[in-house]
Amino acid sequence: MLATKVIAMPEKVQPKINSLESALHEWEKAVGRENVITDTAKISYYENTTFKTSQSVSAILTPKNREEVQACVRIANEYKTPLYPVSKGYNWGYGSRVPAESGCVVISLERLNNITGYDEELAYITVEPGTTFRQVYDFLKEKNSNLIAPAIGSTSAASLIGNALERGVGQGIYADRFQHCCNMEVVLPNGEFIQTGFGNMENVHSKNIFKWGVGPTIDGLFSQSNFGIVTRMTFWLSRKPAYFQAIFYTIKNNDQLEKAVDALRQLKLEGTLTTASIISNSHRILSMKRQFPWAEVKDDNATLPQRYVDELEKNALKGAVWVGDDAIMAPTKAIGKARAKRVKQLLGAVVDDMIIINDRVARIGTMLWRPIKALTGVDLRELMYFFYNSTHLGIPMEKQLSVCYWRKKTPVPANIDIDRDKCGVISLTPSVPLQGSHVIKVMGIMENICRKYGFEPNLGLKTMSERHLICVPQIIYDRETPGQDKKAMDCYNEMLKTLTDEGYPPYRLGVQSMDKMTSTSSEYVQLVNILKSSIDPNNIISPGHYGIGS
Amino acid sequence: MLATKVIAMPEKVQPKINSLESALHEWEKAVGRENVITDTAKISYYENTTFKTSQSVSAILTPKNREEVQACVRIANEYKTPLYPVSKGYNWGYGSRVPAESGCVVISLERLNNITGYDEELAYITVEPGTTFRQVYDFLKEKNSNLIAPAIGSTSAASLIGNALERGVGQGIYADRFQHCCNMEVVLPNGEFIQTGFGNMENVHSKNIFKWGVGPTIDGLFSQSNFGIVTRMTFWLSRKPAYFQAIFYTIKNNDQLEKAVDALRQLKLEGTLTTASIISNSHRILSMKRQFPWAEVKDDNATLPQRYVDELEKNALKGAVWVGDDAIMAPTKAIGKARAKRVKQLLGAVVDDMIIINDRVARIGTMLWRPIKALTGVDLRELMYFFYNSTHLGIPMEKQLSVCYWRKKTPVPANIDIDRDKCGVISLTPSVPLQGSHVIKVMGIMENICRKYGFEPNLGLKTMSERHLICVPQIIYDRETPGQDKKAMDCYNEMLKTLTDEGYPPYRLGVQSMDKMTSTSSEYVQLVNILKSSIDPNNIISPGHYGIGS
Repeated sequence: MLATKVIAMPEKVQPKINSLESALHEWEKAVGRENVITDTAKISYYENTTFKTSQSVSAILTPKNREEVQACVRIANEYKTPLYPVSKGYNWGYGSRVPAESGCVVISLERLNNITGYDEELAYITVEPGTTFRQVYDFLKEKNSNLIAPAIGSTSAASLIGNALERGVGQGIYADRFQHCCNMEVVLPNGEFIQTGFGNMENVHSKNIFKWGVGPTIDGLFSQSNFGIVTRMTFWLSRKPAYFQAIFYTIKNNDQLEKAVDALRQLKLEGTLTTASIISNSHRILSMKRQFPWAEVKDDNATLPQRYVDELEKNALKGAVWVGDDAIMAPTKAIGKARAKRVKQLLGAVVDDMIIINDRVARIGTMLWRPIKALTGVDLRELMYFFYNSTHLGIPMEKQLSVCYWRKKTPVPANIDIDRDKCGVISLTPSVPLQGSHVIKVMGIMENICRKYGFEPNLGLKTMSERHLICVPQIIYDRETPGQDKKAMDCYNEMLKTLTDEGYPPYRLGVQSMDKMTSTSSEYVQLVNILKSSIDPNNIISPGHYGIGS
Repeated sequence: MLATKVIAMPEKVQPKINSLESALHEWEKAVGRENVITDTAKISYYENTTFKTSQSVSAILTPKNREEVQACVRIANEYKTPLYPVSKGYNWGYGSRVPAESGCVVISLERLNNITGYDEELAYITVEPGTTFRQVYDFLKEKNSNLIAPAIGSTSAASLIGNALERGVGQGIYADRFQHCCNMEVVLPNGEFIQTGFGNMENVHSKNIFKWGVGPTIDGLFSQSNFGIVTRMTFWLSRKPAYFQAIFYTIKNNDQLEKAVDALRQLKLEGTLTTASIISNSHRILSMKRQFPWAEVKDDNATLPQRYVDELEKNALKGAVWVGDDAIMAPTKAIGKARAKRVKQLLGAVVDDMIIINDRVARIGTMLWRPIKALTGVDLRELMYFFYNSTHLGIPMEKQLSVCYWRKKTPVPANIDIDRDKCGVISLTPSVPLQGSHVIKVMGIMENICRKYGFEPNLGLKTMSERHLICVPQIIYDRETPGQDKKAMDCYNEMLKTLTDEGYPPYRLGVQSMDKMTSTSSEYVQLVNILKSSIDPNNIISPGHYGIGS
């Protein structure tokens, strides 16, 4: 490593007089007048999310490429007007596109939406921040690719890069998205740009398939933080299994849940199950199937009468309270069958009921759902739908987003936008070891606190690796019902504090709680802030994001 | 993230007069007189490695715990005497314990050798820098553990932490060691310490099983660099397979090699093969079996007459020039058998000869090796040895280290120490996509340059992931033969330059080439140096390591 040219980080500057106005003028010159948005209605969309916030936005910039992003950053430094970059802004449940602090100019990267690289043999794709999950899915489909991009649990209009930088959890094999990406192109706070890993050298053949490169690895600095603006990144893709099997199972009680989680750990550590496992409670299942029964329950603040849940559990779930969703990804039928046998042996033995659907079962189910329903009362069509549209296979699934409209009095629209529709959604995702006893404890805490505040306990979990999972409670309400914004945030705050105190902090923060991780060691916080100010002395990029530079 | 206490990074200081002498005095007070070594003979051991270097070492410190490391760092800052931390110093082939620059005091962490945490269910172990691969292997064996620590390709006297920080490649499932570790405890250049990931908060249950924590991830800053001294770290362990199968195969020519590498990629991407795959050429096999035939070839500078290789290839290898070593790690016999079938189908079809050894085959081979040899001429004992002592199972294997004595005129000692014995060894490990065409090209370059300088082409490869591999040429010579040090380094330099120019830079650098990555972008170099000087203004930790702060 030899410096051949000396570049400087920006000097600390004093803000110029009328700085925002002058900066806007400069930005207009840099990106075109139509890409500097100051229209109140449009800005209002950027100031609102699925819970109450008070941060104001000064303007919105929509540059079209990396060079324009660099120009915007240089101007921001000159006029000391902080920028808040968003890729697509669909950080739903965590604050959408609302900045951590007031007074930021949002720099939206939605126009940088190219797929700039793709390799079927080495199984990767290189994208810009405006590239969406839907776009990548369509791209792979169009190419008749044998590869899968890990789907998102939220809307497929979201950005791959945005999701990865928040270290979101994907579906399928590469669930820990940030573990399976590399070669980031980053615009630094001084307006220069770098590439990470072997992207920092010319013409390295392995730059898109090897995370570390040579020398220190700095990718992590740009995730859940504010050290730069990522304008390109490579994601690794997994192979479509030649023999796919979907697994569904039900769980009746905590004892079974504990054993099921322990069985999942064993199956993952030994390599039998390789995709992100999902378990959802009956409340979550119910809110995917229908909305709150406002026709029968007239009080805006009422909680759901228990009979609705009881009925679902009794009929559709045959007495169970949790539903598991998993998959076996096998390259041959023989391997798939042998693994299915192992899953039955370890997981099937401890849960209430389990079905493993392969293509043969699915064909039969699709043909014979009527007589099967007549004979058994079980309607297989839903299971067949989940088999043929499995998110484990990277297929975008918007169905689960209807849960966000659970408490709305209007029906779920075809074109879902939970910011626009004032759905109340607060996500909280505690980090939990993949052990049954921990899961029981965390689920108990979350259910109790939800009920205390009068919210239905909408609970689930998703495994992130063979050792680790996140629990996913969602506080769902109607922002248009007076008083609910406050009650929901109180509920969230108590849950966050209790879970953190008990040793289960969230793996990711919403914009409302960037300053809430108070148990972080002061030496660590100081170190991160020293690193931040060394490259961003004017605190120009996302001040306060994850509590840094605030 | 909230700073509750303000700590400062050290100020830039002017060196005091007589600074080394005064510093030594202070260090003696901090760690005890017997742990400040200035004895010339002992220092000489730290100044020598397996190739020629000229860096001098001023003294050696051997603190006993993290607190003493902190005290040493504070004193180093005060007297501006740079420290070069080594864990155990067995960075063989890359410079052992020799600092990147002259004038450093080596701080050896060998006395911090505790195993401080272990969890069989979640499959991890937490160790200090002095903890060795052998120690962890013995620990797991003693516990009758069902877990495997990925073995090292070099001596098991090496440190897990030292190897991981250089991002060494392990055997077995977690080959990319740095991808499978977390919760680093690091003494910063100011003498404070931090923990990374969720280690930075109190009592987080997932701190040893989840790499990222919340907020930016800084672990990568402390690898292949000089940002701090790591004093503790957690490593993830893999499960022992209930049904283990060893795979050996031979390859006759480049066409087969290319197809074999492509088959490996497919088998890895689909999850059939999960451990680090190894392929070695006949020169490497030969130098594991015997030393250079000095009795017959009298010229110190001669290269090996071709007939020795021809004979090996003809007899032991049945006409092949490469040997592959792989494994199937399966939780049940049925899964193992189905995967073996798949391996035969994809890999077996393109190589010359393949044998998959399971426990039944191994029992028969062990019992019947005599008649089998009589009938077929094949001696199965060696294969049986590799089955029962497979490095894929984490079993330390020192056998391959005998290759370092290839050109020595003394026999391979029982107690191998290639620094002491003046073996000439220079390792170079280009980063290569897991594609046959790239492997053929890289092997060709390496072989040509070895031959040009009169060294036997000792070549191999090891896969690091489902997309990436490293090639491993070793330049092996006798440091006691005049002129060979220079010739070997010339050979190395040409190979490094050619491979880098062709797009295959090394994934890791030897101490002699920390300043050789001149194609790294200047913006990147500058960024890393700005980060470095923000937390180490006196450049007190390993100046010049990986070219940073030099």
